[in-house]
Amino acid sequence: MKVAIILGSKSDMPTMKKAADVLRQFGVDSVAFVISAHRSHDLLTQTIKDCEKNGCEVIIAGAGLAAHLPGVIAAMTVLPVIGVPLECRSIDEKGRSSSGLAGLDALFSIVQMPKQIPVATVGINNAANAAYLAVEILAIKYLDLQKKLREFRIKLADEAKNNGGMGVEL
Amino acid sequence: MKVAIILGSKSDMPTMKKAADVLRQFGVDSVAFVISAHRSHDLLTQTIKDCEKNGCEVIIAGAGLAAHLPGVIAAMTVLPVIGVPLECRSIDEKGRSSSGLAGLDALFSIVQMPKQIPVATVGINNAANAAYLAVEILAIKYLDLQKKLREFRIKLADEAKNNGGMGVEL
Amino acid sequence: MKVAIILGSKSDMPTMKKAADVLRQFGVDSVAFVISAHRSHDLLTQTIKDCEKNGCEVIIAGAGLAAHLPGVIAAMTVLPVIGVPLECRSIDEKGRSSSGLAGLDALFSIVQMPKQIPVATVGINNAANAAYLAVEILAIKYLDLQKKLREFRIKLADEAKNNGGMGVEL
Amino acid sequence: MKVAIILGSKSDMPTMKKAADVLRQFGVDSVAFVISAHRSHDLLTQTIKDCEKNGCEVIIAGAGLAAHLPGVIAAMTVLPVIGVPLECRSIDEKGRSSSGLAGLDALFSIVQMPKQIPVATVGINNAANAAYLAVEILAIKYLDLQKKLREFRIKLADEAKNNGGMGVEL
Amino acid sequence: MKVAIILGSKSDMPTMKKAADVLRQFGVDSVAFVISAHRSHDLLTQTIKDCEKNGCEVIIAGAGLAAHLPGVIAAMTVLPVIGVPLECRSIDEKGRSSSGLAGLDALFSIVQMPKQIPVATVGINNAANAAYLAVEILAIKYLDLQKKLREFRIKLADEAKNNGGMGVEL
Amino acid sequence: MKVAIILGSKSDMPTMKKAADVLRQFGVDSVAFVISAHRSHDLLTQTIKDCEKNGCEVIIAGAGLAAHLPGVIAAMTVLPVIGVPLECRSIDEKGRSSSGLAGLDALFSIVQMPKQIPVATVGINNAANAAYLAVEILAIKYLDLQKKLREFRIKLADEAKNNGGMGVEL
Amino acid sequence: MKVAIILGSKSDMPTMKKAADVLRQFGVDSVAFVISAHRSHDLLTQTIKDCEKNGCEVIIAGAGLAAHLPGVIAAMTVLPVIGVPLECRSIDEKGRSSSGLAGLDALFSIVQMPKQIPVATVGINNAANAAYLAVEILAIKYLDLQKKLREFRIKLADEAKNNGGMGVEL
Amino acid sequence: MKVAIILGSKSDMPTMKKAADVLRQFGVDSVAFVISAHRSHDLLTQTIKDCEKNGCEVIIAGAGLAAHLPGVIAAMTVLPVIGVPLECRSIDEKGRSSSGLAGLDALFSIVQMPKQIPVATVGINNAANAAYLAVEILAIKYLDLQKKLREFRIKLADEAKNNGGMGVEL
Repeated sequence: MKVAIILGSKSDMPTMKKAADVLRQFGVDSVAFVISAHRSHDLLTQTIKDCEKNGCEVIIAGAGLAAHLPGVIAAMTVLPVIGVPLECRSIDEKGRSSSGLAGLDALFSIVQMPKQIPVATVGINNAANAAYLAVEILAIKYLDLQKKLREFRIKLADEAKNNGGMGVEL
Repeated sequence: MKVAIILGSKSDMPTMKKAADVLRQFGVDSVAFVISAHRSHDLLTQTIKDCEKNGCEVIIAGAGLAAHLPGVIAAMTVLPVIGVPLECRSIDEKGRSSSGLAGLDALFSIVQMPKQIPVATVGINNAANAAYLAVEILAIKYLDLQKKLREFRIKLADEAKNNGGMGVEL
Repeated sequence: MKVAIILGSKSDMPTMKKAADVLRQFGVDSVAFVISAHRSHDLLTQTIKDCEKNGCEVIIAGAGLAAHLPGVIAAMTVLPVIGVPLECRSIDEKGRSSSGLAGLDALFSIVQMPKQIPVATVGINNAANAAYLAVEILAIKYLDLQKKLREFRIKLADEAKNNGGMGVEL
Repeated sequence: MKVAIILGSKSDMPTMKKAADVLRQFGVDSVAFVISAHRSHDLLTQTIKDCEKNGCEVIIAGAGLAAHLPGVIAAMTVLPVIGVPLECRSIDEKGRSSSGLAGLDALFSIVQMPKQIPVATVGINNAANAAYLAVEILAIKYLDLQKKLREFRIKLADEAKNNGGMGVEL
Repeated sequence: MKVAIILGSKSDMPTMKKAADVLRQFGVDSVAFVISAHRSHDLLTQTIKDCEKNGCEVIIAGAGLAAHLPGVIAAMTVLPVIGVPLECRSIDEKGRSSSGLAGLDALFSIVQMPKQIPVATVGINNAANAAYLAVEILAIKYLDLQKKLREFRIKLADEAKNNGGMGVEL
Repeated sequence: MKVAIILGSKSDMPTMKKAADVLRQFGVDSVAFVISAHRSHDLLTQTIKDCEKNGCEVIIAGAGLAAHLPGVIAAMTVLPVIGVPLECRSIDEKGRSSSGLAGLDALFSIVQMPKQIPVATVGINNAANAAYLAVEILAIKYLDLQKKLREFRIKLADEAKNNGGMGVEL
Repeated sequence: MKVAIILGSKSDMPTMKKAADVLRQFGVDSVAFVISAHRSHDLLTQTIKDCEKNGCEVIIAGAGLAAHLPGVIAAMTVLPVIGVPLECRSIDEKGRSSSGLAGLDALFSIVQMPKQIPVATVGINNAANAAYLAVEILAIKYLDLQKKLREFRIKLADEAKNNGGMGVEL
Repeated sequence: MKVAIILGSKSDMPTMKKAADVLRQFGVDSVAFVISAHRSHDLLTQTIKDCEKNGCEVIIAGAGLAAHLPGVIAAMTVLPVIGVPLECRSIDEKGRSSSGLAGLDALFSIVQMPKQIPVATVGINNAANAAYLAVEILAIKYLDLQKKLREFRIKLADEAKNNGGMGVEL
């Protein structure tokens, strides 16, 4: 079981790392590449082909701004592509953080794909959920993953009791 | 007179504490629980039932992102449910604060409930107003609360004079 | 048990009528007035006072655009005020319908009330939910209403089976 | 291979029918149910369990407004859940169509799910893409579907030439 | 020549001070009051009456969130009322700044006033422009102000040359 | 007493006519011109100069899309300029009406003017309010107008009683 | 002088025809193709190469929803690419027109391109402006076009006088 | 080959400097001016005329808020005008950064220009892309620039391999 993680830019690595972490936790391998949809289209084409050959069965792609990357990949493969809209932030010389359109631009660019070329979109910056979704998808084939997911859900519910579920002091 | 306060996440405690503070100020008891709508649905069902049995007459629920919690609770009870849309913020490794969609996602997810299952929605992060509203609701039954509310309003108006109402220097 | 329904404009009557219909269905009386918050403030003050005297225990107010009406009423009374943001529509000479800011202006103007003066906000144009919420609020005092609400919920769940819950043909 | 399609309301049937049509075209069976997340939660719980038992491997859920349905289902199962945000429209007595918040409320309520409970979100009203995504997901297990998808993509590309790809007169 | 400046909250003083500064620069007197539209409506009514009696001819009102203040004042007087939408910001215990809906809520609540009760709205946080507008309004009566405004515009244009208008190094 | 009304396009005439109607009702003369800010800048410059010479004391300007017209005029004169953001609508060959960005583009382009060059902005398509504001502005100089405005407000309040203020049947 | 016009879908032909009309008016040839960025990427690559060989010097691309087409083309060529965000509309069986996110999704997907791969974006549905911009771009090389543009601007200004510039009756 | 860069305010210099840097990298000269569209219109008119005379063939204009500058320039010249919407930020006395409407106001004011007077709009704060676009435009006349652009694209693609294109560790 292997998932490919494609990032539009090196600065997205801390956010997208969370996807790899969740996959690891479920025993799912991942490979990751930083490739721009538009600046290195040929490399992207080749990488997606290689991913298919090397047994990747789901692709996670994260991008910000006019986030074409997940959609461009979806057009290259019939594997399920999960898109993570990223909120692009920069810091200016005075320490002020600018956060683009709060990720709304990326969300629209990823989720509003035309008919026939879908991208499975998750929440803004929510790379962890991209990985949980990837595990759910793989689990319809690899049934031990489904068991792990069920156990994980039970664990979540159990932990809830100790995490304020029995009452907290406000 | 008792109000239950349900939080979607432990990180919402500082914001939701303001609701407990206002209730306390009016002599209204509160109990609080941190329970996710989706990760621990059974616990939530049980807790809401317990709240009803233990005499809670209003429920305040605060949540961020796709804030389903208040609506899910509203479906479990016929007690009035007050929803507080929370703006989810995180801080990255460089100290930049990211604030999701400024709480707009939570606002829409709470206020746009389908017919027959209403949630009484207050302003983004405005947990204090959820408590004032809860007191107003309880006050139609507990008339001494109504008196306290009226006195509180008079006090507010009185204080206004000393808080710049007689003029300030700009 | 009585609820006052205040409308900002006569053109809101078809939408707000749904609130009266739901109240009727639960055996709750209602009185309705068309009063602008700003064009007839004194009349509004007097009407709200009269409503209080005449036993109204909840106030529903619907308004569009910079929908101040619910908030202005909330400042006049300590009764719970439920606000319905209305989407203002007009038709021009060519039959084109214009719909303002889709009700977003009214939603913000109603829900974002300052601390201490809350408005219980429901969905855009969702006057029915304002009434269901009013019934839930009254029900904490009038326990037969709570019974009616529970029966109504059971009926809803029962009807669901015959409304596509057992499967539909797509 | 079977997919369950859950609709929040009967009025969503024409839009969601497109999902069933696409599935049919790929030889994938579907079952459909109209069930509200909040008005008939127990029926929903039972239906999702039945779907799992009966071999459904992907669930498509369409809903409008505070569209909780896909997220509520996602919490009930570890099967992949695909959410279709629907733009809710109504027609008033003067023939004016009102379209809520253009589907933005439903989009936010579906895509911004909290960590660990993902919903694979597609475009507003884009039920067809939910089905294409379901087929892609099934195809990682049922390899003949992958072949069909590849052939379908080739057919799309071939047809493009005759659909204006060789030039049109403007 | 006198202008009244009304603020919804003490925390708006630094932003609204800019209006007083601009007025001073044109030799226009100003008086300022901090009065909430809803918490101290009677005081507001009295203050506006006093302002009229004391010769104020324009009123500037700044408010945030569901910024009803300018509209409520506009209903109390036939003097021109200029509204300044304010972006409400708070800082939490971790130093993160939250900025509400970026002032969009206040903008909609001020500018979308119903027919017959206008508010002259200026840009978000742009208290200076409220003052420039007040001076322009007074200037149609006090012609020396018009002369000052013309000279000010000429000075602006002259300074432009020394402020990068003749070229800058990038 | 004279007001100039400038329109960005002939198609705005039905909407902007409401401004002329209100002015007429108060005995204020108006002259109207259709002049694009960008396609006929010199004509606009000349017209604004002529308006000033001919005794116009307030200028109302309505425009849609990137509605620069009011701001461009504000830079040409020190008379108060009132801007009306217009929602641009077109009808296609199938009778579908398209309404741009619901007037949000025009609103932002008019209200967010830079410091020193204010535009007094009213609600989207609310040309009537532009005229009421113009009358209020003129009334600080022409005191009989102030009397008319006061009488008009009293009439509004009086009529309110007969317009549903004494109760309506829902 | 030749411009290529690429459309994402046949349904965009009526809107994009306006670009061809304007080009014709300036004596600039155009060729047009309907090619999806994602469904027929290879055909698109070939067509853009052919356009370059056949002397096209500017490319206009119009697309709706997650409008990747202009950006994908911009990555294939160093010719200037002009993007037209299209508002996608559909009509349902009851004659109600749905208009997506009013073109905001397409606008964000086109204008927010990453560094190094720009798209020259014009207004929503404003295909005419794409053509005027194309003519301006060509005119820096073909100086007779610059003359034509200047004459056209003079004609616009002249016509303005007869189009309401000398006054209209409101 | 020369490009003029016009800035609406001195505070935009750090952002707009990136345009000059990119132009320099391609051997294209640039001249820069800080001129407000409204405070110094005559100077702007003169400067644009001078730019034309001095051989500037493309104009880049960056502005924030109701960013009229690019459109006003576009009306003064038939040279292609590239607009950069800027997000206006300020810091208050407590170090909180306020960021206006995230640049959305400037984007709408620049991109939604009326028919016949286009502005080639790039992404919010994306001055670099304005310069890349300027180079692409110049390159249809100066063919060595086209060669440089092609080489630059190849370099980008080559560097991609070493920038995470061959895989990264997450």
